[in-house]
Amino acid sequence: MLEKLLITGAGGGLGALLRGNLSDVAKTVRLSDIVDIGSPGAKEEVISCDLSDRDAVKALVEGCDGILHLGGVSVEKSFDTILPANIVGVYNLYEAARAAGMPRILFASSNHTIGYYTQDTHLTADVPLRPDGLYGVSKCFGEAIANLYHDKFGQETAIVRIGSCFAEPRDHRMLSTWMSPSDFVSMIECVFRVPRLGCPVIWGVSDNDGRWWDNSAAAYLGWRPRDNSEAYRRKIDAEQARPAPDAPDAVYQGGKFTAEPIHS
Amino acid sequence: MLEKLLITGAGGGLGALLRGNLSDVAKTVRLSDIVDIGSPGAKEEVISCDLSDRDAVKALVEGCDGILHLGGVSVEKSFDTILPANIVGVYNLYEAARAAGMPRILFASSNHTIGYYTQDTHLTADVPLRPDGLYGVSKCFGEAIANLYHDKFGQETAIVRIGSCFAEPRDHRMLSTWMSPSDFVSMIECVFRVPRLGCPVIWGVSDNDGRWWDNSAAAYLGWRPRDNSEAYRRKIDAEQARPAPDAPDAVYQGGKFTAEPIHS
Amino acid sequence: MLEKLLITGAGGGLGALLRGNLSDVAKTVRLSDIVDIGSPGAKEEVISCDLSDRDAVKALVEGCDGILHLGGVSVEKSFDTILPANIVGVYNLYEAARAAGMPRILFASSNHTIGYYTQDTHLTADVPLRPDGLYGVSKCFGEAIANLYHDKFGQETAIVRIGSCFAEPRDHRMLSTWMSPSDFVSMIECVFRVPRLGCPVIWGVSDNDGRWWDNSAAAYLGWRPRDNSEAYRRKIDAEQARPAPDAPDAVYQGGKFTAEPIHS
Amino acid sequence: MLEKLLITGAGGGLGALLRGNLSDVAKTVRLSDIVDIGSPGAKEEVISCDLSDRDAVKALVEGCDGILHLGGVSVEKSFDTILPANIVGVYNLYEAARAAGMPRILFASSNHTIGYYTQDTHLTADVPLRPDGLYGVSKCFGEAIANLYHDKFGQETAIVRIGSCFAEPRDHRMLSTWMSPSDFVSMIECVFRVPRLGCPVIWGVSDNDGRWWDNSAAAYLGWRPRDNSEAYRRKIDAEQARPAPDAPDAVYQGGKFTAEPIHS
Amino acid sequence: MLEKLLITGAGGGLGALLRGNLSDVAKTVRLSDIVDIGSPGAKEEVISCDLSDRDAVKALVEGCDGILHLGGVSVEKSFDTILPANIVGVYNLYEAARAAGMPRILFASSNHTIGYYTQDTHLTADVPLRPDGLYGVSKCFGEAIANLYHDKFGQETAIVRIGSCFAEPRDHRMLSTWMSPSDFVSMIECVFRVPRLGCPVIWGVSDNDGRWWDNSAAAYLGWRPRDNSEAYRRKIDAEQARPAPDAPDAVYQGGKFTAEPIHS
Amino acid sequence: MLEKLLITGAGGGLGALLRGNLSDVAKTVRLSDIVDIGSPGAKEEVISCDLSDRDAVKALVEGCDGILHLGGVSVEKSFDTILPANIVGVYNLYEAARAAGMPRILFASSNHTIGYYTQDTHLTADVPLRPDGLYGVSKCFGEAIANLYHDKFGQETAIVRIGSCFAEPRDHRMLSTWMSPSDFVSMIECVFRVPRLGCPVIWGVSDNDGRWWDNSAAAYLGWRPRDNSEAYRRKIDAEQARPAPDAPDAVYQGGKFTAEPIHS
Repeated sequence: MLEKLLITGAGGGLGALLRGNLSDVAKTVRLSDIVDIGSPGAKEEVISCDLSDRDAVKALVEGCDGILHLGGVSVEKSFDTILPANIVGVYNLYEAARAAGMPRILFASSNHTIGYYTQDTHLTADVPLRPDGLYGVSKCFGEAIANLYHDKFGQETAIVRIGSCFAEPRDHRMLSTWMSPSDFVSMIECVFRVPRLGCPVIWGVSDNDGRWWDNSAAAYLGWRPRDNSEAYRRKIDAEQARPAPDAPDAVYQGGKFTAEPIHS
Repeated sequence: MLEKLLITGAGGGLGALLRGNLSDVAKTVRLSDIVDIGSPGAKEEVISCDLSDRDAVKALVEGCDGILHLGGVSVEKSFDTILPANIVGVYNLYEAARAAGMPRILFASSNHTIGYYTQDTHLTADVPLRPDGLYGVSKCFGEAIANLYHDKFGQETAIVRIGSCFAEPRDHRMLSTWMSPSDFVSMIECVFRVPRLGCPVIWGVSDNDGRWWDNSAAAYLGWRPRDNSEAYRRKIDAEQARPAPDAPDAVYQGGKFTAEPIHS
Repeated sequence: MLEKLLITGAGGGLGALLRGNLSDVAKTVRLSDIVDIGSPGAKEEVISCDLSDRDAVKALVEGCDGILHLGGVSVEKSFDTILPANIVGVYNLYEAARAAGMPRILFASSNHTIGYYTQDTHLTADVPLRPDGLYGVSKCFGEAIANLYHDKFGQETAIVRIGSCFAEPRDHRMLSTWMSPSDFVSMIECVFRVPRLGCPVIWGVSDNDGRWWDNSAAAYLGWRPRDNSEAYRRKIDAEQARPAPDAPDAVYQGGKFTAEPIHS
Repeated sequence: MLEKLLITGAGGGLGALLRGNLSDVAKTVRLSDIVDIGSPGAKEEVISCDLSDRDAVKALVEGCDGILHLGGVSVEKSFDTILPANIVGVYNLYEAARAAGMPRILFASSNHTIGYYTQDTHLTADVPLRPDGLYGVSKCFGEAIANLYHDKFGQETAIVRIGSCFAEPRDHRMLSTWMSPSDFVSMIECVFRVPRLGCPVIWGVSDNDGRWWDNSAAAYLGWRPRDNSEAYRRKIDAEQARPAPDAPDAVYQGGKFTAEPIHS
Repeated sequence: MLEKLLITGAGGGLGALLRGNLSDVAKTVRLSDIVDIGSPGAKEEVISCDLSDRDAVKALVEGCDGILHLGGVSVEKSFDTILPANIVGVYNLYEAARAAGMPRILFASSNHTIGYYTQDTHLTADVPLRPDGLYGVSKCFGEAIANLYHDKFGQETAIVRIGSCFAEPRDHRMLSTWMSPSDFVSMIECVFRVPRLGCPVIWGVSDNDGRWWDNSAAAYLGWRPRDNSEAYRRKIDAEQARPAPDAPDAVYQGGKFTAEPIHS
Repeated sequence: MLEKLLITGAGGGLGALLRGNLSDVAKTVRLSDIVDIGSPGAKEEVISCDLSDRDAVKALVEGCDGILHLGGVSVEKSFDTILPANIVGVYNLYEAARAAGMPRILFASSNHTIGYYTQDTHLTADVPLRPDGLYGVSKCFGEAIANLYHDKFGQETAIVRIGSCFAEPRDHRMLSTWMSPSDFVSMIECVFRVPRLGCPVIWGVSDNDGRWWDNSAAAYLGWRPRDNSEAYRRKIDAEQARPAPDAPDAVYQGGKFTAEPIHS
């Protein structure tokens, strides 16, 4: 069990889903975001931090023996928005971790690193990257940094290409990409529990019938997702029209992100 | 849900197993065969048709927005028997579909397209074909036509290499090849439900313990078979001797078909 | 050395290129076509034959210990034209060969069995087929027949997916697909010389700098092409405009065949 | 069902776990070891045998129609200890089997044939061997003998690379490598039941969440393990410290065997 | 032939080797660098440009129909040095190209994107990235951008992972990684000549006996390197000691870069 | 350059071909065999040694910084003949090398480790072993020992699966398997020259047109064979009949060895 787990981006959607559910992972949780995230609860600390501020990140990481890096921009934005948060910020985080004894990191990467693969393609963890926007490119950068620090210094990272982590799948595409919060929690437990992590790529997806991604290479982590989006198909079918065959949500794994312009 | 699903070969064994179980797939079902198939039930139409008659097929397909192509010869026969039904007939069907707005097709291909692989070989969907008779060759032809019409016109087809679809597995080999009618129905639902089908190869087999075929590449369809032939092992063992180690039923995936001569 | 080599389709372009160059392969050559091919030269026989005539083909094959099957339609045509020549004809040929002691066959298949792969794809011999027209589909049928007769009876066939066999490459695409007549002759020598042929797929292409196809799997035949289309690049560049990036000749391996309609 | 199953090494740990549980496999069991294994029970025979004694092994095998070869050294020892038991002994066994009509053999190979792969590597059955000691090397020898006798004579062997077969997993590494006795019994049933076995490699491991090994290639045997080491994680965590990240038990699949010296 | 080829980084070592040798590629060459590169020669333009200046890059690219992007930092440096040149600069370049009608780009990537693979590993173009420093990470970023702009807009890029491009190989490692200037020139000609480029990865290496990289996937470009570093082995052996077996230059493909610290 | 290269089995055929041609590899050569090999020449030592004598091997290896292990039985023999020479002997050699500072070893393995693959199969270095006799099994053992000592101690070995090394190819099969003595010498030079060898498998075969084996994985050694058996085809064809299609020399890569019995 970790002494203190840092969660960056704790004020975002993922942070909210996880907060309070990691008591089996760490004795204390240090929550951080650039936005206000309220007061700490029991066994919580709260520290406000801008990831692009190198010294602030260094202070933030110090004293933690595990990091859940959810911070930064998580949707398609302009390059000027993504650069400080997702590129400079990731570099800062890894330098800070190196200075702090290299606590294990779970890096929230994204399916948008491979979003231009079509939905009829079955992906293993070692396929070439095909990002679907500048956000996806920034996650490719982060994955490269994670590999570099592993090869050069031994820093361990779980690179988690998250599909769609919400309480429930919200549209037809998410029937393939959904990861339940409960499955994410059990994955986090595996990542911080395994004696030797290395630097694996893990597809962040539940045991959905229509999944696109193959986690065989990461089976050694012992993570077995239990939820299945199929339970929500009827509800989604009732509420929404299925996407047209040529809609981005039906063609590409990255869905609507592939239809985003480059934001200026 | 489809407006009208055409089922060719509706008078055969497969057709009988499916008839009446596709109410979640289509509002109306148009049943067709060259043999008499009795009177239509509720929400059924019956049209007699010889697949080698180009104009008749054109008329048959018109007005349908989905096709379950079970028609043609389904056992080893002479070339002269197979040619009109399975070669000319398939060409006619695809031309008719093209004229009718390209309704999605489920093409009943067969394990006999790969019947000469030995039973200790694990097959993915992209292995080279090894047909075990003229029937198997005709299904290779059909798969080529399906791919052509997909690449050239965008016609979508689910190429289903059916193992053995019966109410129960009937011999020891079928413990590996059996697909339950119920699993076939759920596959059909997936095929006509997915927003974008493309032209996948699907192994038509239940979740049998001793299966030979790997459906990973088609996982995006969301089909997860639920039945397992293992439930029938004891019964088959009680009723039949196991095949000898050198019997076609024990050596080749295509079983006895590999021992058939070329019929004249 | 063969006693008597049958060449079907001897009146076509390929036949003309090879005629007279196979004296190291066979003592006598039996030339056949449905069209008139003139009088036999020394060590030649000429027999007119319609490949769709089962008995005629049987008589044609009798007495030969090798077959170079170039016959049939070799461009995109209507189904009604392709059916007798390339489907019925191939079946007739293999049945005739079986009756005649199974002389080794070199079957002229075509790059049009895989014509819908894009030109930036590197193909090995075991990729799934993607025909670009009914002609290509008929060659897929022929390959399936060749495999069937090999697996069932031991009939050996060299399945040669010919690129573009002319005296010189004729356009930019052929800089990738060209096979020189001299390289084809040396391949034929290898095919009829190797003690055990089996049923390999061979890409019929010279040692062109810009080749798309990988013959590693057939290296055991000992065929090493010596010519390179690069010698003709300057000439072709001088005479023709390069195809536009979106022209079929620049996009697909099958080139213009992919732009052909289904002929009626 | 077998008439008489020979179990070599019946006095060892594996033998003890299996003894009495194979009544669905064979009518009679012939138990053998070099050490004393007590008196035979019902439907049992006991024969003491030194595997390095060629004639004794020949007599031992005679009259059996199945062999479970658990005998020999099963831990790291000096070469002089391993040579007679695991190298000479295996040769003797296969020669004896050949003389006795080639009863089917289940050969207890070991994960120590591949022990130097790191734990973050997912292995299929066809990876190159990387033994972690002289014991592992002797099992590589045995696998080579099994393949030779299969290719040359048709002798069938199930090469089972056993992980850790105990009543319960005993340490953290075994959460990945554990095979329950019950799963081993069901595998033995499959091996002696399938009409045609061939010479497959089977990973001997239960359905553990954190498994490293992929049994797809052997799926045709119909073996589906039912147990999962996860049920014991809490207990092991309570009783033992997790291995350090650089401990052999955390780095290599072979665990502590990789840290063994060459014994003299 | 191009009307106007932009060469960024023209003042660097690569630029110097190529300058004056591209008259078969473009009628005019626009040379650019942040450092002074002297006066333009015949058919040359010179424009000074800082790649991190978005507007300047836009002006620089305008009017060019081909880009050879050699600019930016090409050795290991601090993050603050690499960020503007290799990250912001690449983004600026692709945005400028998009505004200018998407002239084809040859992007000088580097073997340092995969520098942590050991030298006994044979790499194809689709292996996962393993950068050996921040410079390598920045090239991973550039490759991701190139793929994004190809998938989203159709912008074509040749991603060239240059080994060591000098007049001669300079040390023992370069006997594996060397690309002769003449081979680079012929590659550039291929890249700008092929009707449809796509977005391939090309290993920039001559036909060295001890090469590590496999260009099969890019064979369609028609590039066949003619030089071989072996001609220089004797000279290098005479002048330098071979690296020790544990020296970075003997262990890793990236050589000494793997031993660089993170610069601050 | 080595100070002293030990050649075991120096009195055999391979030894005779190499003796006197390794002056670029080592200053002195220590020749050893169990049979008499005459008097040493200049820069030669001769030591008689039985490889099954542990102490004698230890003395033999001492003082050498490279080993060319050609010793032991090199044809199919009884187990009792092969055991001391090829199994005990190899173990002795590696233990002696370990005691002597781990001089680099070139281990003469054999194509008979994979002799049961058919000749139409293209093999890379990582295929599962399929030995064709007890000799081949003993070489599998040796390869396992080589890997063990590499993984456990860092001992480097070039595992060379020699085809047929004679002055000229001697029969039709050798047109595929021949390695010229000159190509073997250049390979030996590469093996002892490369700074870091590791433990690669190298196919010992010249650049024959009809080769079966792919050395891509070992390309980093910089070995490029220059000879081609094709130069001898006419001569062999003139002197010998080609093997029948079902003769072992035409079916299996191991040729006649597959037809050998187990010798007693």
